[in-house]
Amino acid sequence: MTAHSGRHFLQIPGPTNVPDRVLRAIAQPTIDHRGPDFAELALDLRERVKPVFGTGGPVVIYPSSGTGAWEAALVNTLSPGDRVLAFETGHFASLWRDMAQRLGLVVDFVPGDWRRGVDAAVVAERLAADKGHGIAAVMVVHNETSTGVTSRIPEIRAAIDEADHPALLLVDTISSLGSIDYRHDDWGVDVTVGCSQKGLMLPPGLGFNAISDKALALAPTARLAKSYWDWTPILDANEHGFYPYTPATNLLYGLREALQLLEEEGLRNVFARHSRHAAATRAAVRGWGLEVLCVNEREYSSSLTAVLLGAEHDADKVRRIILDRFDMSLGTGLGKLSGRVFRIGHLGDLNDLTLAGTLSGVQMGLELAGVNVDPNGLQAALSVLRAE
Amino acid sequence: MTAHSGRHFLQIPGPTNVPDRVLRAIAQPTIDHRGPDFAELALDLRERVKPVFGTGGPVVIYPSSGTGAWEAALVNTLSPGDRVLAFETGHFASLWRDMAQRLGLVVDFVPGDWRRGVDAAVVAERLAADKGHGIAAVMVVHNETSTGVTSRIPEIRAAIDEADHPALLLVDTISSLGSIDYRHDDWGVDVTVGCSQKGLMLPPGLGFNAISDKALALAPTARLAKSYWDWTPILDANEHGFYPYTPATNLLYGLREALQLLEEEGLRNVFARHSRHAAATRAAVRGWGLEVLCVNEREYSSSLTAVLLGAEHDADKVRRIILDRFDMSLGTGLGKLSGRVFRIGHLGDLNDLTLAGTLSGVQMGLELAGVNVDPNGLQAALSVLRAE
Amino acid sequence: MTAHSGRHFLQIPGPTNVPDRVLRAIAQPTIDHRGPDFAELALDLRERVKPVFGTGGPVVIYPSSGTGAWEAALVNTLSPGDRVLAFETGHFASLWRDMAQRLGLVVDFVPGDWRRGVDAAVVAERLAADKGHGIAAVMVVHNETSTGVTSRIPEIRAAIDEADHPALLLVDTISSLGSIDYRHDDWGVDVTVGCSQKGLMLPPGLGFNAISDKALALAPTARLAKSYWDWTPILDANEHGFYPYTPATNLLYGLREALQLLEEEGLRNVFARHSRHAAATRAAVRGWGLEVLCVNEREYSSSLTAVLLGAEHDADKVRRIILDRFDMSLGTGLGKLSGRVFRIGHLGDLNDLTLAGTLSGVQMGLELAGVNVDPNGLQAALSVLRAE
Amino acid sequence: MTAHSGRHFLQIPGPTNVPDRVLRAIAQPTIDHRGPDFAELALDLRERVKPVFGTGGPVVIYPSSGTGAWEAALVNTLSPGDRVLAFETGHFASLWRDMAQRLGLVVDFVPGDWRRGVDAAVVAERLAADKGHGIAAVMVVHNETSTGVTSRIPEIRAAIDEADHPALLLVDTISSLGSIDYRHDDWGVDVTVGCSQKGLMLPPGLGFNAISDKALALAPTARLAKSYWDWTPILDANEHGFYPYTPATNLLYGLREALQLLEEEGLRNVFARHSRHAAATRAAVRGWGLEVLCVNEREYSSSLTAVLLGAEHDADKVRRIILDRFDMSLGTGLGKLSGRVFRIGHLGDLNDLTLAGTLSGVQMGLELAGVNVDPNGLQAALSVLRAE
Repeated sequence: MTAHSGRHFLQIPGPTNVPDRVLRAIAQPTIDHRGPDFAELALDLRERVKPVFGTGGPVVIYPSSGTGAWEAALVNTLSPGDRVLAFETGHFASLWRDMAQRLGLVVDFVPGDWRRGVDAAVVAERLAADKGHGIAAVMVVHNETSTGVTSRIPEIRAAIDEADHPALLLVDTISSLGSIDYRHDDWGVDVTVGCSQKGLMLPPGLGFNAISDKALALAPTARLAKSYWDWTPILDANEHGFYPYTPATNLLYGLREALQLLEEEGLRNVFARHSRHAAATRAAVRGWGLEVLCVNEREYSSSLTAVLLGAEHDADKVRRIILDRFDMSLGTGLGKLSGRVFRIGHLGDLNDLTLAGTLSGVQMGLELAGVNVDPNGLQAALSVLRAE
Repeated sequence: MTAHSGRHFLQIPGPTNVPDRVLRAIAQPTIDHRGPDFAELALDLRERVKPVFGTGGPVVIYPSSGTGAWEAALVNTLSPGDRVLAFETGHFASLWRDMAQRLGLVVDFVPGDWRRGVDAAVVAERLAADKGHGIAAVMVVHNETSTGVTSRIPEIRAAIDEADHPALLLVDTISSLGSIDYRHDDWGVDVTVGCSQKGLMLPPGLGFNAISDKALALAPTARLAKSYWDWTPILDANEHGFYPYTPATNLLYGLREALQLLEEEGLRNVFARHSRHAAATRAAVRGWGLEVLCVNEREYSSSLTAVLLGAEHDADKVRRIILDRFDMSLGTGLGKLSGRVFRIGHLGDLNDLTLAGTLSGVQMGLELAGVNVDPNGLQAALSVLRAE
Repeated sequence: MTAHSGRHFLQIPGPTNVPDRVLRAIAQPTIDHRGPDFAELALDLRERVKPVFGTGGPVVIYPSSGTGAWEAALVNTLSPGDRVLAFETGHFASLWRDMAQRLGLVVDFVPGDWRRGVDAAVVAERLAADKGHGIAAVMVVHNETSTGVTSRIPEIRAAIDEADHPALLLVDTISSLGSIDYRHDDWGVDVTVGCSQKGLMLPPGLGFNAISDKALALAPTARLAKSYWDWTPILDANEHGFYPYTPATNLLYGLREALQLLEEEGLRNVFARHSRHAAATRAAVRGWGLEVLCVNEREYSSSLTAVLLGAEHDADKVRRIILDRFDMSLGTGLGKLSGRVFRIGHLGDLNDLTLAGTLSGVQMGLELAGVNVDPNGLQAALSVLRAE
Repeated sequence: MTAHSGRHFLQIPGPTNVPDRVLRAIAQPTIDHRGPDFAELALDLRERVKPVFGTGGPVVIYPSSGTGAWEAALVNTLSPGDRVLAFETGHFASLWRDMAQRLGLVVDFVPGDWRRGVDAAVVAERLAADKGHGIAAVMVVHNETSTGVTSRIPEIRAAIDEADHPALLLVDTISSLGSIDYRHDDWGVDVTVGCSQKGLMLPPGLGFNAISDKALALAPTARLAKSYWDWTPILDANEHGFYPYTPATNLLYGLREALQLLEEEGLRNVFARHSRHAAATRAAVRGWGLEVLCVNEREYSSSLTAVLLGAEHDADKVRRIILDRFDMSLGTGLGKLSGRVFRIGHLGDLNDLTLAGTLSGVQMGLELAGVNVDPNGLQAALSVLRAE
């Protein structure tokens, strides 16, 4: 067994591989969160985090997981009994639905088969039917981490506009932020929900809300109870480089370094790299003779690929073999996809050769698990990588 | 100016100095939070964190600040409109009161002068008067970080028992946990609220709730809206070493190392060390001819000392001089104590010589600020330290 | 270009990839090299380093490169004008020869074609012819880092014994130590020369001499001038856990962690892993239709493979393309092999998937450089890796 | 016992406290020492290291201790049997003498009492008497680490010039470099010997030679055997950013960060800081009623202070008490000063409060050891620190 020599391959769709530079950054000594050095850090981050969201507006950073940022998006904008429109695009969309219900919202949940994104036509139809404007918000997961399907936010925005409906647009970018082109302002999103441990290449522990003027204006009157998640005192304190409660200082050091890395590479290049790696991965999957879960090529995810196995195979057995033999973690099938798919994460701090190693491991693991695959799958991926 | 050579003296009452071993621990690569290595870590922490709280029961760990853990304590046990009894022991007690109100609770707030802890006689009296058992919970800050006053929880417990009142006892140990003797089980506390960045010697980013059986039984029926903070799914997932949402893995690495450090020194020794350092600090303050804010010697805090200046002096000016000239951060006067006191943190990872350096810096800073102090204050502190 | 995302592939034959655990170990604070904590470290290392050399005798650790350890082997055992027998197995054997001459020794240098190891028959012949025992030492490079050829030390030992010749046997294990089976005691080696930055997985900065009783007995009378390299004062001080001059403390922290890693995996497993990876690499080279430089399969190196290109190709151009496009460093052709070969390091902290990524990068780089290779080379390597 | 909480006080005269920034720098992954990134590092260091030595000429960096750099200074410039003039200023001057003898040089060793520096008048006298210019070099320790006495190099230079003698001037700056004003070029030094672990704030493992044109010209003809230490191949390779053998890459990362720190503070400020700290330390020693070993105030060392105890006390017992009770390492009395003195290091990365903590610990330790000291010693030191 070579499991314990060399570097673990963390190829789940997040947490992603944290670059050494970021790990060293978070290992800096914690400082006084009310002192001048902290204020300098916070004021710097306040501006530098905006381009990643494609916004010129405020971004709130929480000491929390991304789940917390989901909750923040809801409690700052909605009131008990409000109706929201959501879509069953996969496991995480379903969890967000559950949260909304637990917080006292009423969810219109459009069913789905977990292989497609949000259909803008359905959005248009639902909103058109909602003459009384009872729907307070539309909740969309940009990139479904459980399926590798990316919904097209601009089309959803257009559908809302077309229906001339005042509903807020709330978007989860947990596994797309910093990996897939995203434009909070241009696409008219009201609250964008993000987290640290995916495209931002940080350890988990930070949640984000990018906020439109429209959403911000609602916070004072939204009646879901809120204290920890309340935007207003945070934004007020942020003005001066502070926080109303102790922020996760060391993760903020990491955020500064991660933003620096993204700036050095250039966001456009970062997105192009993810797109190339996703294309190479799909080339491998098809080369093996297997099926990509996502059925619509316009919805392929750049950050992960879910691979669908025939009913005769157990995807978790494949994953277990790969972990045992090749020290690589892949994503499991979640919810109703359990045992049917495994997910290859190709987001965050990644390069061609690590992807080639990843796909080599997947190929060998499939073979060892008795899945009949064409070994030219790997070649197909290398052809994509080699072609630039 | 020598400000930028050598190591910054972080002598605020938290965040505290994070030991090198802990910083290196959090710089380990992030791993799959659904894999076997993570499960091993989580199951280990689940047990090892208990002694710090003095409990054999469950402890929930949140990716959050301590403020989040305050909120968790409330939303898991209470319902909208519930009455709680709280005490104005200082700034943080007042903030917790504000949070409770914001979440929809009704707070009976017993006024205080910010120089004393909770008076058990008042607890007894209030509860005795509450014949209808309308008070759902008693909220107490164990160690007021803004004042350096430690309330005696066992006396409060006794008062509740004496009144034969069913109210929950909720205790904030933000700045006492891991520094001052504390016994969740023995003292009959229902929810203990803690955080990572004080006595636990970690960066900020983790919140804790230790939970009694009685409190746990209330969670399913408590009607304050909850999702992120909900104990139940966390405790269920923890059984198997997992979390319902992505935990702050790297801070958990740090927690394991910090618990290891506490175990190596021994909790009793840790408490004794804090007590000695607090005594040395008070000896210095008195030696200088200044006043300790805390008026009752049975309530002296082992983790911080607030120093009261005469009205003719600006405590923040003293702090500024000390930061500029000696690269040391001290705690500011909060709320109504602004400008009147400064606070010396002597908790967490600290030894005699760093405390001696700290008190040397305070003495020089006072002198430079024109505060008339007797230079033998430092000698008095050294006498305490030298005496073992 | 994706060059700056992800982790650099350092696949030269050393320095090798330093494990995170070792990097964190060397980042511990430097301590007093005359204090009790240091003594504990030094005494621990003194014993734990021995198995890596296959010796029960003393091992001297220098703050130096491996080149320094070469010099130490000579100046502690030889006198000006002494004759030594050496073999032109490649670039490093030639450099060691140069050093010996510069220090005032007379070198009988047996020519070679850089594709073969030391021929024990020639050793036997030369020593048999040396009736007057004028040859004071036989200098052998165990694993030639410039060629990927491993000489068989036991056969050389047998040849010396057969000739009944008193010459010392000095062996360079720079790129075999901790990667290829090696037995200082069993094989009757007198001085083994090693360094930190290859199989030991450390940064460069430590040199090693393992010393036989026979060699040690010569040190007092050997007349090459020596001070820094002198074994005697070091071994004397080491008895008590100290050094006669300041040791490279932080690299010693790293050494402790690296030895821990080797112990966890088990030396036999470490050697088997290197052997498997070397076999997989050769399978790729042959699958591509290219030639391994080493011509004798009994002399294949487990730690690196030199790939010979046809005269129409420039191996450094291939390396440059691979560095630019795939962020991977490979070894250049040294000395007379310049431009003719490139070298793939597969030693140290490595696993199957990183090797697969490495070979993927080599294959793509060869294709991009216009070298006509069969893309099934990679498949052939994966077959080896998959087979366990 | 509080020994294991908080940060160890490393107040020996080197190795010194390595700043966090430097520790993190050396924890960066090792890279290819023949690749473009390394060349960039090496070329940068080649220039940036010069100002620390006060030279515009070449500086050779060895993977070695400072002792190695001593050897390098001798073997590059001298031949067997050459006479050198040296001075018994303390333990390290004596060790350097021993080394010179071991390498085959003849040493004229001017005796001394270990409380004074080199007397320029004696230099003048000895050189004037050496009509035949038989003395090839004058060896001086700038700052004697065993005594805390700093010799005045400009006066020695003047004495050599006055005698119109061609002897080389070789100077050891092991414990002055980066702490005490030093000017290789202006003072006409031929070889300056330095190391990493003192004023440069690095772990041990790097040795330095700054070289005058005159010294460099001697290297090709100097006949002491040399290979590892040979300047010429190193300087040749350095031209292109490389080294003839594997350099200590990770310590070079640290060197870059340490030079950055020195540049940020400014060398003049660094020297002034050391001078202030030395003055404060001497004020404490005198305040305690004890004696500074150095007798001549023009020779006080800015980097360490040796404290002389009466014959009735054992300085090592004081040190042991301080280590056990206060977790602080102090320097022992070396050679003939054993048991008579202890040494306080106040060089490298240090600030006022750490010095105050250090002196507090010394004062308490002396008291605990039964040495009769006036407790106002500490006050006297604070007065110096407070006065700016």
